[in-house]
Amino acid sequence: MSEIRQNMATKEWVVIATRRARRPEEFVQPTREKTEELPAFDADCPFCPGNEELELEKLRLPAEGEWQLRVVRNKYPALEEIGPVVRCFDGVHRWIAGVGYHEVVIESRLHNVQPALQSAEEIERTLTALQMRGQAIRQDPRIQQVVYFKNHGPLAGTSLRHPHSQLVALPIVPSNIRDRIEEARRYYDDHGECAICRMRDEEERQGVRMVVAGEHFSAFIPYAAFSPFHLWIVPRRHGSSFLDVPTEEVRDLSHVLRRLLRKLYYGLNDPDYNYVIRSAPEREAANEYLHWYVSVIPRVTQTAGFEMGSGMFINTALPEESAAFLRAIEDPSWE
Amino acid sequence: MSEIRQNMATKEWVVIATRRARRPEEFVQPTREKTEELPAFDADCPFCPGNEELELEKLRLPAEGEWQLRVVRNKYPALEEIGPVVRCFDGVHRWIAGVGYHEVVIESRLHNVQPALQSAEEIERTLTALQMRGQAIRQDPRIQQVVYFKNHGPLAGTSLRHPHSQLVALPIVPSNIRDRIEEARRYYDDHGECAICRMRDEEERQGVRMVVAGEHFSAFIPYAAFSPFHLWIVPRRHGSSFLDVPTEEVRDLSHVLRRLLRKLYYGLNDPDYNYVIRSAPEREAANEYLHWYVSVIPRVTQTAGFEMGSGMFINTALPEESAAFLRAIEDPSWE
Repeated sequence: MSEIRQNMATKEWVVIATRRARRPEEFVQPTREKTEELPAFDADCPFCPGNEELELEKLRLPAEGEWQLRVVRNKYPALEEIGPVVRCFDGVHRWIAGVGYHEVVIESRLHNVQPALQSAEEIERTLTALQMRGQAIRQDPRIQQVVYFKNHGPLAGTSLRHPHSQLVALPIVPSNIRDRIEEARRYYDDHGECAICRMRDEEERQGVRMVVAGEHFSAFIPYAAFSPFHLWIVPRRHGSSFLDVPTEEVRDLSHVLRRLLRKLYYGLNDPDYNYVIRSAPEREAANEYLHWYVSVIPRVTQTAGFEMGSGMFINTALPEESAAFLRAIEDPSWE
Repeated sequence: MSEIRQNMATKEWVVIATRRARRPEEFVQPTREKTEELPAFDADCPFCPGNEELELEKLRLPAEGEWQLRVVRNKYPALEEIGPVVRCFDGVHRWIAGVGYHEVVIESRLHNVQPALQSAEEIERTLTALQMRGQAIRQDPRIQQVVYFKNHGPLAGTSLRHPHSQLVALPIVPSNIRDRIEEARRYYDDHGECAICRMRDEEERQGVRMVVAGEHFSAFIPYAAFSPFHLWIVPRRHGSSFLDVPTEEVRDLSHVLRRLLRKLYYGLNDPDYNYVIRSAPEREAANEYLHWYVSVIPRVTQTAGFEMGSGMFINTALPEESAAFLRAIEDPSWE
């Protein structure tokens, strides 16, 4: 019998289809050209050294000498930095001018790496750059929500191979995020504690869905994971915003994220994936019931009509089996 | 400047990225093996005549003589038909036994067709079969919500080429559908009319996003379409449930759907797509503020981290341009 499970933090339901369930090995990806087999430099790549468009640059690290990371304005941004937040409603159509920020973090000088192949220090540099840009952007009173994310591979929505991540800063709070805030508030009101703190406690206690435990972060496959190997990385310290996380914790996050991404790389043969940093809306960051976290979603299945029509998912992998599979993946370079 | 548009019925926001916008022609798909080039019969196909597993059969049309359509229980169902709706909550984990229905409509005897290549009568037969099965299933008091959908092509989540559609009947109302009901109720309370009736009126009046007008249905690209060529087919007669639509209206829907799918087939070179019939939850069907409709989603772009992190979409096509493009597509067989 399948189980229909609910995520207690988001209230989202998922069908865990045990009769259709595939073994973890069945999600191993076919081999394709490996990142590390690409040239380290590609003269046609806009992110490679020598092709810098300095007028787009927002940040470089280190600030002096040869850069190791750059943040640039997206050359074809979804949102524009200049202009007021014009709002329009004619009784039927509501729109807001598309002001905001759309930036790209170029994560390395090298064309042929990806986070799973980087050091923890390099991943930490990326996370720090996202934090620095978020801290600058939240000063802008027009901005309500910043979304931080990485798309790795074509099934995850990117065609550029040079390693990069992105942020989009919006003048609104998306309705999906509002709904999650409302659920967090309701849980907090009912139980006097944070739903995500409670979930993390339980996952650590039970252990069956745990994948990596860091000093400050726990990574597990949620009980109601909506797709195979869908992972949450949850900070132990309760807090609403990624932007307020101290350096020492960012460092631990970079170690945990690296271990996870290497487990995916070796265990599933370099799957495409997205990760998303789910941080509170800027005007909600002081609220005590919100808990930020990172979601990692390997793109090993395809959403279809059922998902579109219901907003629910059918997960054909058992979270407990997926977690055991990832726990067992040995990384040849484990420190 | 981009626009951030809101769908007044669902309250969902989308970034219409005008600076990144691609022309409609840029979404034309690369040519691949065409459905009609496949053999009409495939001995290995579980849906081809001769391979019927009669113990799975739920319905066949016509009832006597050579079948033209069959409905079967999914051989690897996400949900099981037998058993009580057991509910479990241990304070942290909530689950419901996976009872429900998961059925497949085999839309033709022929292996090498798809709705765009079928007659309106054949499409009507499919819609009628979905309706007949829905009407039978709603008698089951365990069922709260039926989701009707079609996946066409691998990017839409199917690997079987034989034309088929599906239904999943759930013992819960998914939270996404609950949220939409709440928005519909709020709009109705505030305005004394249905949001979707109002939208349809406006789209017919303005015309810029209209694609096909039938006698009982209007098909348009919504003002806040979340992806290129995302279409809504909305009944003119207000009603909450697809199951209560009379034959004459189902016939008109099959004509409108066929014209749309042929426009996609000829205009975008047979793109993968999903369609979903969004019908009210069975225990909400008597509510006066709900309006059923059909959503058609060509899979010509890939969702990425931004969409996952925000629940919003970035649409790189202008709905008005996409609609004009589809309006202009000539169908060589237009009746």
